Amino acid sequence: MNDIDRPEVLAEVNAAFDAYERALVSNDVATLDRLFFDSPHTLRYGATENLYGYEAIRAFRAARPGSGLARTVTARVVTSYGDSFAVANIEFRREGEPRIGRQSQTWMKTPEGWRVVCAHVSWM
Amino acid sequence: MNDIDRPEVLAEVNAAFDAYERALVSNDVATLDRLFFDSPHTLRYGATENLYGYEAIRAFRAARPGSGLARTVTARVVTSYGDSFAVANIEFRREGEPRIGRQSQTWMKTPEGWRVVCAHVSWM
Repeated sequence: MNDIDRPEVLAEVNAAFDAYERALVSNDVATLDRLFFDSPHTLRYGATENLYGYEAIRAFRAARPGSGLARTVTARVVTSYGDSFAVANIEFRREGEPRIGRQSQTWMKTPEGWRVVCAHVSWM
Repeated sequence: MNDIDRPEVLAEVNAAFDAYERALVSNDVATLDRLFFDSPHTLRYGATENLYGYEAIRAFRAARPGSGLARTVTARVVTSYGDSFAVANIEFRREGEPRIGRQSQTWMKTPEGWRVVCAHVSWM
């Protein structure tokens, strides 16, 4: 497991992460849903909610207002371990919000592509 | 990557997670340090700090007061993917704190044992 940040793996994960970020700020719910691993094990701790299982996450997104999601990423660290696991961590700012936001995702490579198996978003 | 929660893998991760939790509430800094992956890639987003790299995390722990760390775990989900990766997520309560705490860790199996490569702790 010492093959950290193999360039071809890291490039795949960064592309998946970029797709997620674009989908988030434009509230492209279909893409966000696709990029989470469809499993009851998948979970997401949000700023104000703890969601267990893909269906709970999907339902939350379907119900969430689609505005006010824009943000500026102020720090970004994506690290791959081996060829099928990675973590992506960012700090971000949202207009009108004085606190620093943080987002952590654990990504896994599946036959369908890279998927988020676990996410945590919070304000510092 | 569809071998999720293989019993022997999950048992190892749960044991490592239990050791971490015991070390945390007793402020056993040596064990906490040992259970994080010694790498500049390792990171930890805490309730009030963003720490990049093993050394920053170690320095934070060395400087932190050793009291008031007790907590009650109110939800726990540990999931292993394959034989060398896992995520551990808990909700917790701390006395005198009305908010729900959340802790997410990504664990990797190394030749020295299971290690945390990424952690995120926050209040909801």
